[in-house]
Amino acid sequence: MNRRMVVFLLSRILFAEAILMLPSVIVGLIYREAITWCFLPAIGALLLLSLFGLKKPKNTAIYAREGFLVVAAAWVLMSLFGAVPFWLSGEFDSIWDCIFEIVSGFTTTGASILSSVEQLPHCILFWRSFSHWIGGMGVLVFVLAVMPMGEERSMHLMRAEVPGPVVGKLVPRMRDTAKILYTVYAAMTLLLVILLVAGGMPLFDSVCHAFGAAGTGGFAIKNTGIAYYNSAYIDIVLSVFMLLFGVNFSLYHLILIGRIKNAIRSEELHVYIGIVAATVAMIAVNTLSIYQNVGLTLRNAFFQVSSIITTTGYSTVDFNRWPAFSRMILLLLMMIGACAGSTGGAMKVSRVVILFKGVRQEVRRLLHPRAVTVVRMEGHTVNSGLLRATLIFFVMYIACLAIGTLLLSLGEPDFETNFTAAVACLGNIGPGFAKVGATGNYGFYSGASKVLLSLEMLAGRLELFPIIILFSPATYRRVGK
Amino acid sequence: MNRRMVVFLLSRILFAEAILMLPSVIVGLIYREAITWCFLPAIGALLLLSLFGLKKPKNTAIYAREGFLVVAAAWVLMSLFGAVPFWLSGEFDSIWDCIFEIVSGFTTTGASILSSVEQLPHCILFWRSFSHWIGGMGVLVFVLAVMPMGEERSMHLMRAEVPGPVVGKLVPRMRDTAKILYTVYAAMTLLLVILLVAGGMPLFDSVCHAFGAAGTGGFAIKNTGIAYYNSAYIDIVLSVFMLLFGVNFSLYHLILIGRIKNAIRSEELHVYIGIVAATVAMIAVNTLSIYQNVGLTLRNAFFQVSSIITTTGYSTVDFNRWPAFSRMILLLLMMIGACAGSTGGAMKVSRVVILFKGVRQEVRRLLHPRAVTVVRMEGHTVNSGLLRATLIFFVMYIACLAIGTLLLSLGEPDFETNFTAAVACLGNIGPGFAKVGATGNYGFYSGASKVLLSLEMLAGRLELFPIIILFSPATYRRVGK
Repeated sequence: MNRRMVVFLLSRILFAEAILMLPSVIVGLIYREAITWCFLPAIGALLLLSLFGLKKPKNTAIYAREGFLVVAAAWVLMSLFGAVPFWLSGEFDSIWDCIFEIVSGFTTTGASILSSVEQLPHCILFWRSFSHWIGGMGVLVFVLAVMPMGEERSMHLMRAEVPGPVVGKLVPRMRDTAKILYTVYAAMTLLLVILLVAGGMPLFDSVCHAFGAAGTGGFAIKNTGIAYYNSAYIDIVLSVFMLLFGVNFSLYHLILIGRIKNAIRSEELHVYIGIVAATVAMIAVNTLSIYQNVGLTLRNAFFQVSSIITTTGYSTVDFNRWPAFSRMILLLLMMIGACAGSTGGAMKVSRVVILFKGVRQEVRRLLHPRAVTVVRMEGHTVNSGLLRATLIFFVMYIACLAIGTLLLSLGEPDFETNFTAAVACLGNIGPGFAKVGATGNYGFYSGASKVLLSLEMLAGRLELFPIIILFSPATYRRVGK
Repeated sequence: MNRRMVVFLLSRILFAEAILMLPSVIVGLIYREAITWCFLPAIGALLLLSLFGLKKPKNTAIYAREGFLVVAAAWVLMSLFGAVPFWLSGEFDSIWDCIFEIVSGFTTTGASILSSVEQLPHCILFWRSFSHWIGGMGVLVFVLAVMPMGEERSMHLMRAEVPGPVVGKLVPRMRDTAKILYTVYAAMTLLLVILLVAGGMPLFDSVCHAFGAAGTGGFAIKNTGIAYYNSAYIDIVLSVFMLLFGVNFSLYHLILIGRIKNAIRSEELHVYIGIVAATVAMIAVNTLSIYQNVGLTLRNAFFQVSSIITTTGYSTVDFNRWPAFSRMILLLLMMIGACAGSTGGAMKVSRVVILFKGVRQEVRRLLHPRAVTVVRMEGHTVNSGLLRATLIFFVMYIACLAIGTLLLSLGEPDFETNFTAAVACLGNIGPGFAKVGATGNYGFYSGASKVLLSLEMLAGRLELFPIIILFSPATYRRVGK
């Protein structure tokens, strides 16, 4: 393993985190909050550690193993340093709460241990929401966008951080790809801020909620969430933008370069829209008796479906009180998640489509053992390696849910809470059901359970393999077998 | 498709069912129960329909498609006719209850819609329990044992009915394999009856409970289940025998022909014993505070683990009241199930081992993309087709659970009840948690939900593919693609 290169890359990432803390400091200065000092020790420590990255190693060769390791270690380190301002602010009860909260931020989960957020200083609220925005597109992608690296290297890092079964380059150079992604991301976020302000939401609230929607995070800055604003316009703007941030960003690049037809033809996009339309309709029918008004019912169903399938986690109603059928639909959406290559989490629509086609192929194979069958996706043949990787991913995903629920139940008595907490954290959604429902929070869990849930969030955000590789002894063996 | 051959095979199976109803009639006559007449119309109808099978078709060629179809259709028909005595007995509230109860019997689930069973006539109780014994080893295997067929043909039928990822012949001739299986099965059942009678259980009770244990079914004939006898001896005898019936029967064949070493070396057996030992220990530690006595705690943990991993479903305590951690362990055991080639249900230990090794291989592949890795099981290389089929099976299994829970929640409000009902029916266990726990029953579900759960039970017993193929339009197309 190229240890020097791993250290070099990690120190570059820590440097980037120091820079990314500055906007929160500026917010604190604007609001003249004395507590803003709590960012300074973290920034100082990050800058100090980043000195390790001053000298680039001679041998810059890294391979898949180092790629996974750097990404996993970077996310763990980022979270530890990111928790420091929370801890110093004195607003949190324990260090586990701070770690849980910042991991929930970076992984764009949006699960909170706080029962009330409105008393938090602006600089802390901003850092919470901004962590969604950083984590949504990925800090490594950010570093790639601003720091030149060899092509082969970048690919290994990018593959480990960008969600989805296949990671493609948009343009020949990886660095340009990262720049395009961040430009689209920033422009769409800005547009959302403008639309929210136009709808009467205060600027600070608009910025924070735009970060949460863009990263598909879900931290709100009001105790009652988006319901606080009680505005059909805001609900609909947010619903639409959450869905937009759940689309594969390469489609926006296709549109930018004029290949709109190719973008619209995306199979994953069609399934994504189809799932949204079908589940909104089913939930609307199922909940009409609650809201007694077709318009309001549709608005609530659309907002909640959009929020859950994109794994954002904002809410305008307490969907924990919906009938069992609607809740079960939301639970399934929590597992499906958004499109590959978006800022959304969970399994991704394209993986679900590949799984479905894999099952169909297997049934055909049994019926006609001598027929040649292939699985096709987006017009290309899915090779057996990709199908196998997708199937294995599914097995690991379910295994993470099962192990998570088992370990959580050591402390807490309620299956529905534990299971949906595992689903909501692994899928980076935020709210689950029962005690961790839309109006609940994760504060009651023990420190150990909070660490476990933090690991589930990281595993979910990085799509399992990097975190498993980080903890696998085989990673550190000299000669692998 | 060779329709004549499908009809011929089905009529042979219906003939077998008519014969298999006779013991219940004899029991009714012994106890001088007037209600015994309720079997006669069913036997008459079965014999009438079996006349279609008098003439063997000239073309006896069948392929995989016909094999799956015959097995699936046979199990559906068997269940419909098997429900007739229940219906005529007047002891059941609706036809859906009768169908649920007999499907639960044949599939060796043991889930009941009855809140009380002690008032049932002996002939009905016997038919309920005997259906476990028939379904455990499989009615097609029974037919194969007594009816000569071409080798190629039998293989297609056997593969569709015998559980596990790979179906091997024990001896060159399929018919002899079927005979060996049934001989071992009958001998072990007889031994269990003798041991139970020796422990003071009445003969009728011993026979019924031996059927339930042998088929890993779980219908008890007392309202309080096995707890009624309150005997450490009976608990331990049943625990051991349930575990024995959960072992791959080909191992017993190996022992019979003197290859004991080969039998003991079975990898699946080691994992199976390891899981039982580990989970008994964990549950014992977790429940010690309830029973306040190490011996009793171990006895209860061993009985419940043995009952659940083999998917039998007998109970001696209300494990629904155990702490969340112990219940979660039982829930995971419900999904794992017993060994392949046993009478147990669920996913099977060997599949879980293959999945685990598949994941490990994928992680290695990511770390060392150029290394050649293979998955080995029982000393042989698992080819990519078997690995893929096992992965696909897992996906389908989880999909059946998800769809089942979703549809059940249309009628019932409680996630834990619906989810564990789906787990318990698909895995052929019987009891779940919450409302369908060890002291609950399935009576409160609607007719539609009962039909759905019956389909889950059939799908689980036949390992998904036959039932999916039965309902797939592609099956009936002339030229498949």
